[in-house]
Amino acid sequence: MTKEAYAAIEVYMLTCMKDVAHDKHHIYRVLSVAVDIAAHEKNVNMDVLIAACVMHDIGRGAQEIDPKLCHAQVGGQMAYDFLLTQNWQQAQALHVQECISTHRYRGDNIPHSIEAKILFDADKMDACGAIGIARTLIYAGQMDIPMYAKSEDGNILTEKMESGTHSFVQEYNFKLKKVYDTFYTAHAKTIASERQEIAKNFYNGFMSEIQTNIGGLFTHEN
Amino acid sequence: MTKEAYAAIEVYMLTCMKDVAHDKHHIYRVLSVAVDIAAHEKNVNMDVLIAACVMHDIGRGAQEIDPKLCHAQVGGQMAYDFLLTQNWQQAQALHVQECISTHRYRGDNIPHSIEAKILFDADKMDACGAIGIARTLIYAGQMDIPMYAKSEDGNILTEKMESGTHSFVQEYNFKLKKVYDTFYTAHAKTIASERQEIAKNFYNGFMSEIQTNIGGLFTHEN
Repeated sequence: MTKEAYAAIEVYMLTCMKDVAHDKHHIYRVLSVAVDIAAHEKNVNMDVLIAACVMHDIGRGAQEIDPKLCHAQVGGQMAYDFLLTQNWQQAQALHVQECISTHRYRGDNIPHSIEAKILFDADKMDACGAIGIARTLIYAGQMDIPMYAKSEDGNILTEKMESGTHSFVQEYNFKLKKVYDTFYTAHAKTIASERQEIAKNFYNGFMSEIQTNIGGLFTHEN
Repeated sequence: MTKEAYAAIEVYMLTCMKDVAHDKHHIYRVLSVAVDIAAHEKNVNMDVLIAACVMHDIGRGAQEIDPKLCHAQVGGQMAYDFLLTQNWQQAQALHVQECISTHRYRGDNIPHSIEAKILFDADKMDACGAIGIARTLIYAGQMDIPMYAKSEDGNILTEKMESGTHSFVQEYNFKLKKVYDTFYTAHAKTIASERQEIAKNFYNGFMSEIQTNIGGLFTHEN
């Protein structure tokens, strides 16, 4: 991809994401990991992959306004429309749309092409390791979610419950610790496995540090 | 300390901290670590230590309303006044006040008695290890502070600057990584040293994961 073609896509992405300013670093992390994974795969269309990485979250604004919308579907369509204005061939633009529309962890649409699988893996990588922990804690702070919560008998709640308390510890067990099994490409699995150790050690240390032992004398600790 | 005496102090603390509800877990962590440290020291007045731990942050509400106030000074006075209503001897109540008024990391007043040193160390322990990292990230989310920021040439800023950007990475280097040198008691140093490894590994992993390598082709990454 030429510098000019990249710059046009990047400027469009930054325009779409102006309301979530500091999430642009997520985009660059995903792009960087995707380029790394692609170097370990054959026959990757780098133009499609780069365009899909840079624009994969441009539908978030629409989803924030209307939570019924899926940012992957909306973003895929937006990317397709934008690339046609940039004189991309329709087949290439459709390929970018496919990648973006199948990048969600929880979506029904699963990625098929190697470019779609690489974007999926690179995006999931941001939920792994230290960065996955850090993003989850930052989000908890933004949403007033506590680090942990205790049951009535004083035990730290680790599993999500249908209703009631929600915490970083519960989110770790519900999502973060399971993300390592969701990768498609071999190199992504390798990177994720390295990061998994960091996340595990942090979580285990955290759980150890928050154990309190102040005995039966003391009440009202829940 | 009797269960009843503890319960009275705890209820008073919870009443004082009702606006910072989920910070009560900080209190219980500090108390738990303090009890552990005390078991490695001689001649600790446990009544004074427990009362000081439980009430060490009760002045935070006043400081939030008027930032010129120091929560350690205000909290010390509040604790003294409260303990007199609980029929504590004046000397003991004064001792609790001393502990609370000298527990701040940045305060001019340094702790003198063993109970004051233990409270100081137990409170600082909550800035160490995984819990120190987690609390800093939660705070960043609450205050809209980014995880990291880059300089104009694309490098991640690690040192605090007089003005401008402020981030988790800068806070780690400014405060978290230095807290391990501030302990008074031997056992606190031992616990902190174990926790330091977890924090270091997390930070090093984080810094490695956020490095992007998307080459000179791509612009606007700052």
